[in-house]
Amino acid sequence: MFKILKNDSSSFGRRGVLSTNHGDVQTPIFMPVGTVGTVKAMSPRELHELQTQIILGNTYHLNLRPGMDIIRKAGGLHKFMGWDRPILTDSGGFQVFSLAKLGKKTPDGFHFQSHLNGEHLFMGPVESMAIQRTLGSDIAMTFDECTSYPVTWETARDSLESTLRWEARCREQPRADGQLVFGIVQGNVFEDLRAKSISEVHAMGFDGMAIGGVSVGESEAEMVKVLKFCAPLLPKELPHYLMGVGTPRQLILGVMNGIDMFDCVLPTRMGRNGSAYTPEGTIPVKAARYKEDFTPIMEGCQCYACQNFTKAYIRHLLNADEILGARLLTIHNLHFFLDLMRRVRESIEQGTFAELAADVIARYPEAMGKPIDPETNTIIDNRNAKN
Amino acid sequence: MFKILKNDSSSFGRRGVLSTNHGDVQTPIFMPVGTVGTVKAMSPRELHELQTQIILGNTYHLNLRPGMDIIRKAGGLHKFMGWDRPILTDSGGFQVFSLAKLGKKTPDGFHFQSHLNGEHLFMGPVESMAIQRTLGSDIAMTFDECTSYPVTWETARDSLESTLRWEARCREQPRADGQLVFGIVQGNVFEDLRAKSISEVHAMGFDGMAIGGVSVGESEAEMVKVLKFCAPLLPKELPHYLMGVGTPRQLILGVMNGIDMFDCVLPTRMGRNGSAYTPEGTIPVKAARYKEDFTPIMEGCQCYACQNFTKAYIRHLLNADEILGARLLTIHNLHFFLDLMRRVRESIEQGTFAELAADVIARYPEAMGKPIDPETNTIIDNRNAKN
Repeated sequence: MFKILKNDSSSFGRRGVLSTNHGDVQTPIFMPVGTVGTVKAMSPRELHELQTQIILGNTYHLNLRPGMDIIRKAGGLHKFMGWDRPILTDSGGFQVFSLAKLGKKTPDGFHFQSHLNGEHLFMGPVESMAIQRTLGSDIAMTFDECTSYPVTWETARDSLESTLRWEARCREQPRADGQLVFGIVQGNVFEDLRAKSISEVHAMGFDGMAIGGVSVGESEAEMVKVLKFCAPLLPKELPHYLMGVGTPRQLILGVMNGIDMFDCVLPTRMGRNGSAYTPEGTIPVKAARYKEDFTPIMEGCQCYACQNFTKAYIRHLLNADEILGARLLTIHNLHFFLDLMRRVRESIEQGTFAELAADVIARYPEAMGKPIDPETNTIIDNRNAKN
Repeated sequence: MFKILKNDSSSFGRRGVLSTNHGDVQTPIFMPVGTVGTVKAMSPRELHELQTQIILGNTYHLNLRPGMDIIRKAGGLHKFMGWDRPILTDSGGFQVFSLAKLGKKTPDGFHFQSHLNGEHLFMGPVESMAIQRTLGSDIAMTFDECTSYPVTWETARDSLESTLRWEARCREQPRADGQLVFGIVQGNVFEDLRAKSISEVHAMGFDGMAIGGVSVGESEAEMVKVLKFCAPLLPKELPHYLMGVGTPRQLILGVMNGIDMFDCVLPTRMGRNGSAYTPEGTIPVKAARYKEDFTPIMEGCQCYACQNFTKAYIRHLLNADEILGARLLTIHNLHFFLDLMRRVRESIEQGTFAELAADVIARYPEAMGKPIDPETNTIIDNRNAKN
């Protein structure tokens, strides 16, 4: 169900098509995040207009709200939220770690308390797969443990052992009809653990392979190091998904290292917070310097916001806390990310990806005013990715 | 510039067309409120799709934010907000009264403090008209004083005298090219004052006549009494605008009494607060009873929300504080109001307005559980209108 149309000659990049229950996904692709059954501030129609091919849903959030009773009665997440294209669901593991109050770990998963109401809950591979089955996502993710950073090799190894056991359990669970399941590669920054993880997860026979644990604390340089190490080891016949990443520059670095799929809250969250992506980096649209700027956020941009509104107007909306301000920046930022990936796909097809990649990589760090690691040519300070 | 196409035989209702700088407005019409340069939660495109003919902008709010410097440089309010159809601006008088911290009244207007930052400001007929000229609205309103309720005859008379003097000043002020100016009838609940007001405002030669001060405290029964008294006195050749009104039922009562134009924050504000209009009254979509209700808000409704989403989903969005929830209910409620007025126009054309009016009037009070005044057949409790 994954077909590579063309390999990039300059990198590990590939142009592919992933077939799912709800249609094909042209890769490399960016997936907008629809945490709790809606891509924040967007309507499904607007997502269609941006040519969004696939969105992400969060198992942890959806399990708390609206809960699986309602999703089951609605006939699955697609029907519930009125989205007829592919959905990938994460396993919930990352949110149990990052959002919930974590309790005892058992061989079967984690006890934790809901971040919403403190309710005591338990989630492990069996629970996660059951929820994702009810959600009816096109792609389900295995339940993994995310290590924090920095972490010792021993801790990372123990965590990886749990993850691998849990992934094997996930593999055995019943799935929704036609649901794909992707395994997750962990191992933190340790190359031997990443290699072991890739090899064992591959052996389990999943439909795709994700790289997890790269956006939780290390610098971009560390992330790229992991990516570069993994790139030649990842099974070429499977789609590769880099979880929770990242900035436009990081998407390019991912593609160069064979990544086919990305998701990140950056475009939507930054948009709601008043930041707009441009080829020169993000701009804070609320800033006084845009008060009388009657030009669009980005000249030449084809999105609804740039085609119809000025920075001065959007700044006014943001300052007056008007919903339309958040909406317009979300539309623009998602368009920016989706358009970047469209250009990536075209450039791989046309054999010009190296130029596009060089341009994006050269442009961003300088414009963002962040220090660059001369060896890896990457931004050292990765704070933006976690905004 | 106002043409009556047909008079309703059962009431003072009329079907008309008002020509403005930005096109014709088919009346009777409801005008969504775009307080600060945006109809809250809506994009201009969505307003077009709802066949919104004209919107309202608030002079008081726009003068504070973004301020007239920016509006002037943007080339007026239409260009600033990307709306190419008619805009009516109020005079700011009502907000100075209801929102700002009111200071000293002088023969030329009011001293007041901004509700946003406490800034000391002054507004009277000259200032208001200058602002509206800068905004470039298609229809400007005269600067009036709103009396509170209840009020003595003497106070209402004194206030009316100020208003009439100010309206005469407004009449003399320069206008934007092609801008229409409507006079406002005040006089509170006192028939002699309302009659005097109509006669003197008419004599000033405005392009339209508004009835003010009917949604600031009295019951619906009192409002209807004022409307019924004014209906035969209003100059037939002018468009009649009932300011700040109201519920669907009140729109019908207005049309029956010769009103051509209405504005109200109800559909947008109620939508953001989780209430949806239906032919049986408003429903609180957050309520637990809609948790597993997989039907649209209103069967047969042609709006985007009802065509694509269920109550259960919208309830979930509202409970999770998702922007899309507010958006969908705003779309539905505006569609409901605009569609009601479309049906009003068609029924006047077809000679069936009496049936439509009887149906809406009969339906609402009961469904809304409000006490009805048997003599006027109106809801006594008018709180909804100020929500």
